[in-house]
Amino acid sequence: MAQTRPFAAIPDNLLKENLEEYEKSAFVRACLRQETSFTPVWLMRQAGRYMPKYREIRSKVGFLELCKTPELAAEVTVMAVEDLGVDAAIIFADILLILEPLGVGLEFAKGEGPVIHRPVADANDVELLTRFKIVDELSYVLDAIRLTRKSLPSDIPLIGFAGAPFTLASYLIEGGSSRNFDKTKTFMYRNAMVWHELMALLTDLTIEYLRAQAKAGASVLQIFDSWVGCLSQQDYVDFVLPHMVRTISSVSDVAPVIHFGTSTTHLLRYMADCGGHVLGLDWRVELDQGWAMVGRDRFAIQGNLDPVILFAERGEIKKRVQRILLQAEGLPGHIFNLGHGILPTTPLDNVKYLVEVVHELSRK
Amino acid sequence: MAQTRPFAAIPDNLLKENLEEYEKSAFVRACLRQETSFTPVWLMRQAGRYMPKYREIRSKVGFLELCKTPELAAEVTVMAVEDLGVDAAIIFADILLILEPLGVGLEFAKGEGPVIHRPVADANDVELLTRFKIVDELSYVLDAIRLTRKSLPSDIPLIGFAGAPFTLASYLIEGGSSRNFDKTKTFMYRNAMVWHELMALLTDLTIEYLRAQAKAGASVLQIFDSWVGCLSQQDYVDFVLPHMVRTISSVSDVAPVIHFGTSTTHLLRYMADCGGHVLGLDWRVELDQGWAMVGRDRFAIQGNLDPVILFAERGEIKKRVQRILLQAEGLPGHIFNLGHGILPTTPLDNVKYLVEVVHELSRK
Repeated sequence: MAQTRPFAAIPDNLLKENLEEYEKSAFVRACLRQETSFTPVWLMRQAGRYMPKYREIRSKVGFLELCKTPELAAEVTVMAVEDLGVDAAIIFADILLILEPLGVGLEFAKGEGPVIHRPVADANDVELLTRFKIVDELSYVLDAIRLTRKSLPSDIPLIGFAGAPFTLASYLIEGGSSRNFDKTKTFMYRNAMVWHELMALLTDLTIEYLRAQAKAGASVLQIFDSWVGCLSQQDYVDFVLPHMVRTISSVSDVAPVIHFGTSTTHLLRYMADCGGHVLGLDWRVELDQGWAMVGRDRFAIQGNLDPVILFAERGEIKKRVQRILLQAEGLPGHIFNLGHGILPTTPLDNVKYLVEVVHELSRK
Repeated sequence: MAQTRPFAAIPDNLLKENLEEYEKSAFVRACLRQETSFTPVWLMRQAGRYMPKYREIRSKVGFLELCKTPELAAEVTVMAVEDLGVDAAIIFADILLILEPLGVGLEFAKGEGPVIHRPVADANDVELLTRFKIVDELSYVLDAIRLTRKSLPSDIPLIGFAGAPFTLASYLIEGGSSRNFDKTKTFMYRNAMVWHELMALLTDLTIEYLRAQAKAGASVLQIFDSWVGCLSQQDYVDFVLPHMVRTISSVSDVAPVIHFGTSTTHLLRYMADCGGHVLGLDWRVELDQGWAMVGRDRFAIQGNLDPVILFAERGEIKKRVQRILLQAEGLPGHIFNLGHGILPTTPLDNVKYLVEVVHELSRK
């Protein structure tokens, strides 16, 4: 069916409003499985600690302050595009910002990663979460998007993003990052009703947030379900899938949607059932196999170089890029990316080289 | 081929020496895909912090001291079998003990997990690793095995174990546990020759260690490649598989071998190429799918309940056990286990209930 209606998935209103941008951008065209003259590339966490310029800015302002200062957030967003020559910008922000107005005490503790000082343990804690409007509390992200959109070249699309409800819930419940996600799963198993309430609340917020980002100028939306790979297939279907279906179906009329997770080889066919336009793969699955699993006629594919390859020598980087491009076989709908975010100690020159080599090897 | 020679994989010398034990033990029979009257069950980390009796012992001695005192190690090994009613014992030890005599400064720091104070960074560090004989430096484990064997009921087999070379190398290089394994992979990519030297050294030691454990009285051997799931298929094949083939083929004449890892859905078919008798699955792959991937006619299968299910209510635990047993379809060759070790805060009563319910639901 998808083959007889190849453009059925193109968001209607964006097609009308931004037709020109869509025609020009290889990245947006690839999201919609249209022909491109080269493989577009962008990199998760392309603005980050691995960049000396970024570290200089961060030596003056804290991480949260940077996110909350639209001029600075826009500056680092654009800087990454200019320095790397990537085909898309992604707004500088963090998936956990949306948790702060809930009143749970979010802190980005130095060297420790994010901390939630008042984690959610039961129905009462869910009840006590502050209800809020995205435009009231996260206007700084929307302002950053508007500012970035003005200073970016018109042919560079801006990606907006949000954490997926499961990944957000896991931080809320664990109180930070986790290895085994035992508190999150125990919550699911013992309080299924309350779990679904919490997920519904986070889904509502995520939808509102992503729609607002699109309205502010984000042309494509990525949903990060970074840690969902810790779940079995059954748990994914019972506790996550319905909320992802609602999230994605409620935003895919305003922008193409990229659905990303790590360690998800076993979940890919269920993630495909959630809808959207692009599936993001980590390196644990071969690109061609992962693409076949979700359907080449249904999805564009994003990925999937192991971020650690950027620590290797150039010859090795080139070989690995070539391998991924060969797996995509030059078919429309491949967006080159890493399988997860750039690591903080990555050599900047290798990141630049990666972008060059993707362009060089894929140009038709 | 395997179907016409169903017992080809039975280790020759054990068949002769321990025929009686093999005939009696449902666990050993299942390892060799022979009929059993119920599904045997044991649990990774079945002697551990979740047990009040274990915590009492540990309040008096440190973790390393416990491992190094054969009487105590034997005591907790047997205690777990008596308290839980499981069908196999596993010697109380740690996969990292083998690293201590290398002279890298192993410490089990309180609340922090294992630390390697002098991690391996280059060829010179590999050169400087102390060469040693297992019987000289790890005789305390072998003594513990001999003592345990004497005090265990004769129909309860004792499992010996070792970390797989990759997982051991990752601790040596990272200096402890890791999230991204960036140092380990960088080492592989940039120093492939030295990587293979290090892996060869660890493979030699692992073979010597496992053979010594079998000689001391271990009837079955489990190899823990706990973190290998961080690798892509290509990296597994290039950097790990040849060493696993050598490890497993060099010990499978003395005992049935269980090959275990987590997050390995994408690697299972390559792990199958490594040989051995039993594949251990985590919960990310459905048992029936995982078993089909490695070959029902080639391997017995072990797994695969998510350890966090033990935090759920009994009804839920029973439902999940039933589901796994149904997937195994009562076929010979299923050993019930968790998908990874029991977590320290697990309720003891639920662990006991799990063992009961596996026996109850599977008895023919």
